[in-house]
Amino acid sequence: MTDVVSTDPRTGRAVEVVAPETTPEQVAALCEAALAAAPALEEMGRERRAGLLDALADALEARREEVVALADRETALGAARLEGELTRTTYQLRLFGEVLREGSYLEATVDHAGQSPMGPRPDLRRMLVPIGPVAVFGASNFPLAFSVPGGDTASALAAGCPVLVKAHGSHPATSQLVFDVLAAAARDFGAPAGTLAVVHGQQAGADLVAHPAVRAVGFTGSVTGGKALLRIIESRPDPVPFFGELSSLNPVVVTPAAAAERGERIGREAVASFTLGAGQFCTKPGLVFVPGGQDGDAVVAAMTEAVRQAPAQVLLNEGIANSYGRTSGELAQLPGVSTLARGAQPEGGEGFTAVPLLLSADALDLPHEVTEECFGPVSTVVRYEDEKQLIAALEDFPSSLTATVQRGEGETELPATLARALRPLAGRVLFDAYPTGVAVSWAQHHGGPWPSTNSQHTSVGTSAIRRFLRPVTWQGAPAELLPAELTDGFTGIPRRVDGVLRTPEG
Amino acid sequence: MTDVVSTDPRTGRAVEVVAPETTPEQVAALCEAALAAAPALEEMGRERRAGLLDALADALEARREEVVALADRETALGAARLEGELTRTTYQLRLFGEVLREGSYLEATVDHAGQSPMGPRPDLRRMLVPIGPVAVFGASNFPLAFSVPGGDTASALAAGCPVLVKAHGSHPATSQLVFDVLAAAARDFGAPAGTLAVVHGQQAGADLVAHPAVRAVGFTGSVTGGKALLRIIESRPDPVPFFGELSSLNPVVVTPAAAAERGERIGREAVASFTLGAGQFCTKPGLVFVPGGQDGDAVVAAMTEAVRQAPAQVLLNEGIANSYGRTSGELAQLPGVSTLARGAQPEGGEGFTAVPLLLSADALDLPHEVTEECFGPVSTVVRYEDEKQLIAALEDFPSSLTATVQRGEGETELPATLARALRPLAGRVLFDAYPTGVAVSWAQHHGGPWPSTNSQHTSVGTSAIRRFLRPVTWQGAPAELLPAELTDGFTGIPRRVDGVLRTPEG
Repeated sequence: MTDVVSTDPRTGRAVEVVAPETTPEQVAALCEAALAAAPALEEMGRERRAGLLDALADALEARREEVVALADRETALGAARLEGELTRTTYQLRLFGEVLREGSYLEATVDHAGQSPMGPRPDLRRMLVPIGPVAVFGASNFPLAFSVPGGDTASALAAGCPVLVKAHGSHPATSQLVFDVLAAAARDFGAPAGTLAVVHGQQAGADLVAHPAVRAVGFTGSVTGGKALLRIIESRPDPVPFFGELSSLNPVVVTPAAAAERGERIGREAVASFTLGAGQFCTKPGLVFVPGGQDGDAVVAAMTEAVRQAPAQVLLNEGIANSYGRTSGELAQLPGVSTLARGAQPEGGEGFTAVPLLLSADALDLPHEVTEECFGPVSTVVRYEDEKQLIAALEDFPSSLTATVQRGEGETELPATLARALRPLAGRVLFDAYPTGVAVSWAQHHGGPWPSTNSQHTSVGTSAIRRFLRPVTWQGAPAELLPAELTDGFTGIPRRVDGVLRTPEG
Repeated sequence: MTDVVSTDPRTGRAVEVVAPETTPEQVAALCEAALAAAPALEEMGRERRAGLLDALADALEARREEVVALADRETALGAARLEGELTRTTYQLRLFGEVLREGSYLEATVDHAGQSPMGPRPDLRRMLVPIGPVAVFGASNFPLAFSVPGGDTASALAAGCPVLVKAHGSHPATSQLVFDVLAAAARDFGAPAGTLAVVHGQQAGADLVAHPAVRAVGFTGSVTGGKALLRIIESRPDPVPFFGELSSLNPVVVTPAAAAERGERIGREAVASFTLGAGQFCTKPGLVFVPGGQDGDAVVAAMTEAVRQAPAQVLLNEGIANSYGRTSGELAQLPGVSTLARGAQPEGGEGFTAVPLLLSADALDLPHEVTEECFGPVSTVVRYEDEKQLIAALEDFPSSLTATVQRGEGETELPATLARALRPLAGRVLFDAYPTGVAVSWAQHHGGPWPSTNSQHTSVGTSAIRRFLRPVTWQGAPAELLPAELTDGFTGIPRRVDGVLRTPEG
């Protein structure tokens, strides 16, 4: 039996054994328990599940210091960032409580029996129901917000689906601690046994995805990891939905007007964005398009200076550190790519450290390697001479979670052209902002065409719940057999009745 | 070059050459034209696209006689059924116009900049945008409603996506005629060239799915066919969404109370349902659970009698006829399966004919082969002794588009148990009705877990449009660069503003 070990990335040394890897028998038992919990979790109803999510948030908040300290020791992301991440995590748990209470997410729709141009129409009532137990893969780079207590877990529990989390090997101790906290809170709240489970080890993750009780998979990670899970799903007798957030380049375009107006500031901000969290954000700007000429030179000078002053950073694990060293080195050696600046070398030789790196290339001759995501604090400046070069470079560009335009004050013509070119490539289009730092809200979206995601519903924002629900229509059902939300008298949530959307107020 | 031939299933003889198979070069040119049409189709806006759908419906209606006659000659489904199908088809085109004008489908969401527990939140505005050109595979069994002018086409055009239809080999002439009618109407209306295309031949279908311009695929057909297309999608550098409606058994459960109350009527109705359209509905009831004892015997006697009096039927094509003959013969030979009745033998030896067939098996010993879909006029009666046997037989049952309960008047206890057991297996749960005949409406759903469908959004009902849209969030966008529906002053559609759903009225 292999043990799962928690490592300190600042030293590279193993600190503690967290648990043995979860065995296939244990995985199967957890999946069966999740399946058994599903009806009771659904029957708790919206109000009680909202209460459960609040209780989980409270429990996590009550252990804030301990969780943040352990997560920092395991990830080196820093206490300030992890404090913020915990706040975000409890916020999104509570926000899904709000989603439940508001009730639109059910898409409750009632068509009373009547005549239609097609002849008599039966009584039809549709709403969304939980899809069943969900396997969630914790992400390396967010030990809280995209891991055991993260958005996938929050949205799946909100939907009424038991959750089985595969803990990420970068922070198994944090995952186990947070699981223990949440599981105790769920038990105390009266949630059914089997509502939440955690497994450790890569094989345990694969076993989860293959288990018949698991009805959907949420994954944040690499294209390679995502494809491996997709292959397991394809070999199931009943392939289930897979929601993957995989890879993203996040281009930022600085217009000539923006460069003229605030080139130096943009340069500093862009470096702050791509080195944030040691460049380990899925929304890290991997390419920054900067105009030629003096104004663009000022952007590049500010970026160069900021990178030179940037300290060495600690990456999450050895694999990421090795990959960063190798890939960023390869990028720097590509024909047409030059190195503008390197950050400080690390002091001492230990730990999973990385030196920030700024590269440069020409829009006319962009090697395709620089359009592939490289995890870590590296970004490439792409110089363009005119709009034609810029738009041509964006053609055949891979899709991203985000695309950003830095524009001049009041400038609309080139930004409009860019928005048209960038929208097909991204799930979020930003203006005069940076893509790192994803607000959780009703209007947020964290997706985009392949390879950024493989699905239309994604893991951030309230619509994340949609992934773990499926529609059911009841035809001619007696009122006693309908969910409360579909009965005639029910007015507590927005519903569409005979084609007309009605809010509880209206 | 291979020609596509239109065959008369009543005689089995080729009648006319419709067109040559579409070449790879032609497919590529059509895909490029669709891609080029996409921005203009989106820019037409909701109101004009609704007008386009109305114009397509008008054009199809104007050629009703000719279309119905040709479709009947090619499919032998009968003029009455095809008249109804054309009415349904024009209705659903117009209904998607209504969906566009109403505007909820955009999921327009505005979060103004402000404070949140996570700190300052930027201005975020989200709505759905067209996914891009869509490949639609016409179904054998609905030459209109699930083919060139069908629900996939209507919902994709409504979404703002150009459509490329692969004509089904069972009705290529109807497909070509309807395409010509719709394409002329689209041109006259001012839709961009490339809005709609048709291709012929199996390789042309595969080429469509592989083409980079195609951004989603809608398919109604067999599991085998669906899996073949999925393999093509998986080998794309950018796998795209695949919406498949594949296979469905559609169990009907007759409770003891229902059998006691109206056993004879249920028997007649069940046979009418499974022989409708020669049993070539995806919602055909393939298994009918009937209680043991006298009341159940009455159901079975009525079914037996109705099948004995049923005429031979004409199937859509030679492949379906051969498969029906082989598979229904194999089912009848299974240990534990007995033959209750056969319909009339066909007069004369020509055409793709099928003899209706009623089989019987025991719930305690149900061979798994009878839980697989068999296209054509065959159904199996499954006798059960008690509730325990019934529920046990439904466990490990494959998922279906529909599941039906025939209950006694006012009966709720057993129906509630059955609803709990059947809901996980189906996308529509019916009471005291039959699953064939799918009403098109806001509350309709035509899906279910694999193998009935592989997706959460499906091809019938207004939510079908959701398949061909993807979310985009604009962050900090100047008003001039936002879609009209996301600007502050816009009140024409339901929107969620700062978390609150607002209808145009309220």
